[in-house]
Amino acid sequence: MSRATIKDNEVDIVIGALRSDLTSFLNGWRSVFSQFHLIIVKDPDLKEELKIPDGFNLTVYTKTDIDQIVGSTALSFSGYSCRYFGFLVSKRKYIISIDDDCFPAKDNKGIFVDAMAQHIENLTTPATPFFFNTLYDPYREGADFVRGYPFSLRNGVDCALSCGLWLNLADLDAPTQALKPGLRNNHYVDAVLTVPRTTLMPVSGINIAFDREALGPALFPALKLAGEGKVRWETMEDIWCGMCVKVVCDHLGLGVKSGIPYVWRKDRGNAVESLKKEWEGVKLMEEIVPFFQSLSLSRTAATAEECVVEMATTVKQHLGTAHPVFGRAADSMVEWVRVWKAVGSKSS
Amino acid sequence: MSRATIKDNEVDIVIGALRSDLTSFLNGWRSVFSQFHLIIVKDPDLKEELKIPDGFNLTVYTKTDIDQIVGSTALSFSGYSCRYFGFLVSKRKYIISIDDDCFPAKDNKGIFVDAMAQHIENLTTPATPFFFNTLYDPYREGADFVRGYPFSLRNGVDCALSCGLWLNLADLDAPTQALKPGLRNNHYVDAVLTVPRTTLMPVSGINIAFDREALGPALFPALKLAGEGKVRWETMEDIWCGMCVKVVCDHLGLGVKSGIPYVWRKDRGNAVESLKKEWEGVKLMEEIVPFFQSLSLSRTAATAEECVVEMATTVKQHLGTAHPVFGRAADSMVEWVRVWKAVGSKSS
Repeated sequence: MSRATIKDNEVDIVIGALRSDLTSFLNGWRSVFSQFHLIIVKDPDLKEELKIPDGFNLTVYTKTDIDQIVGSTALSFSGYSCRYFGFLVSKRKYIISIDDDCFPAKDNKGIFVDAMAQHIENLTTPATPFFFNTLYDPYREGADFVRGYPFSLRNGVDCALSCGLWLNLADLDAPTQALKPGLRNNHYVDAVLTVPRTTLMPVSGINIAFDREALGPALFPALKLAGEGKVRWETMEDIWCGMCVKVVCDHLGLGVKSGIPYVWRKDRGNAVESLKKEWEGVKLMEEIVPFFQSLSLSRTAATAEECVVEMATTVKQHLGTAHPVFGRAADSMVEWVRVWKAVGSKSS
Repeated sequence: MSRATIKDNEVDIVIGALRSDLTSFLNGWRSVFSQFHLIIVKDPDLKEELKIPDGFNLTVYTKTDIDQIVGSTALSFSGYSCRYFGFLVSKRKYIISIDDDCFPAKDNKGIFVDAMAQHIENLTTPATPFFFNTLYDPYREGADFVRGYPFSLRNGVDCALSCGLWLNLADLDAPTQALKPGLRNNHYVDAVLTVPRTTLMPVSGINIAFDREALGPALFPALKLAGEGKVRWETMEDIWCGMCVKVVCDHLGLGVKSGIPYVWRKDRGNAVESLKKEWEGVKLMEEIVPFFQSLSLSRTAATAEECVVEMATTVKQHLGTAHPVFGRAADSMVEWVRVWKAVGSKSS
């Protein structure tokens, strides 16, 4: 398989702005962000003006733009969900999406890593979901397939989703962080690997990159907790959409990688205070995981749009009675596909 | 889940001696081997006397012992397969098995790692095969489960097999090593993870540890290539048995981990000369992988012995016609279970 290449102008970096002052965030990323176009979506609940330093190529979207472009919809773009509006209005093939509490991380040698370059490397080299390579991503410089890896599977498949990781504040849930308030992740694992086919994982939206043309319809704000807040461990929208997108990738023969690049996450929020809100999400996972593990899509679902619509029907049938949040998620998935098509046809 | 503990006298380190002079090998490992009992099995094809330095607690087995203990059998303990005789005669709960071209490796800080301690750590902490944890083994010091990981799956299952990795000479096949003669692995990835349920992998026998009581009947010398030689890339016996043992673990609800500890492998053999021999094994993998990926065992198979016997029948039915090597492998699997029981009942 020949390696794809990605030009800078094929990428949009999407930032959901949950805080008004983006100065230190953007300055922290200046050297790696400056060559790309940024889409900044202001959380519609945020009242203050955004503070954005000069010198970036960016477009800012606010509540007014959301109302105007999407029109009347049941979709909610509040809080972390505002990022999804950026996915919607982008016209580029690739999206890199980073939370606004993240900063560049250092590797084991103390050198800052270029997370954008690493995400692009992950997306442009094949993924190998059908058989596990013990020496991690065989397409990394200096690596290869180990003895016993079938030659017919070595070409792999296109990688459509790259899930990066977090140093300092790991992406723990509120109960875990409340139980171990001092726990920080200072362990930089210099590896990336393909998550095997049919293996599900908790995709975090903090630091990801994806092929928007292939997967955009499958990355949506659907699962909204009743008490959802403005700190990551109070949300589940990315976890739900990660389950959906992994099922879609497996079905369409696309690959998902997890590992480097890391970002450095600054502390935000109080885990103990979040506990009451988060507990709902923790309980929902007990229903969500077995459901998605047993989900299989029909052969007629040949695009991400079709997969999502079919999945929404099954969610309604099988999870709809368990908790009203699932029925609303299913409705949002269908609505997302409608809006995705409408906005796409308007812009093309 | 409370962590198991393993006493030194519950472990046998098994070494298949394919070279007569074990002086540098054993001296290299002296500080970590000295507290354990070693089982050294001399390759029955090896004519010279073994050279073994003083100061180890060990038992040496030779062709005479093999003939006497196993008796008349179609099993072959030649070459790398001699190690399996060590698995058979051990009376300990755990086995650590290391090839005799391996030496202790250094981590990213330049510190020698205690591979025995790490294997034991892998085996005594739970494995989590049902859902992927993006921050690797959640039971490692300083790690935990990430947001979205279902609480009901966090206890995990017993880890029965720990597969370590290799620095310097990576475990590549002969074609890859012949194509990239200078390729060496100098990338120490400080991680270990559970290989997800139903995901198959090329288990290498170079550096592994396992629960002998649980899995011993499923680690056998079965697939013998016609032109098999005395260098690793000319063999397939461990790859075949790795596919079997992973299926058994998935079926019995046991876990398999892959990652640290690394060992440093010294160069041995000439990849180009091995090409003719190895090519047969490379072609066989194209049949082997789809077969094992579609294999499912019946509920009545409740022990490793029962799984292996059932698997042997299926191998014969589905692969027997593809290549005579598979029929012989199936026979060896059944014979291994017979010998395992016979030797076990004799010693108890």
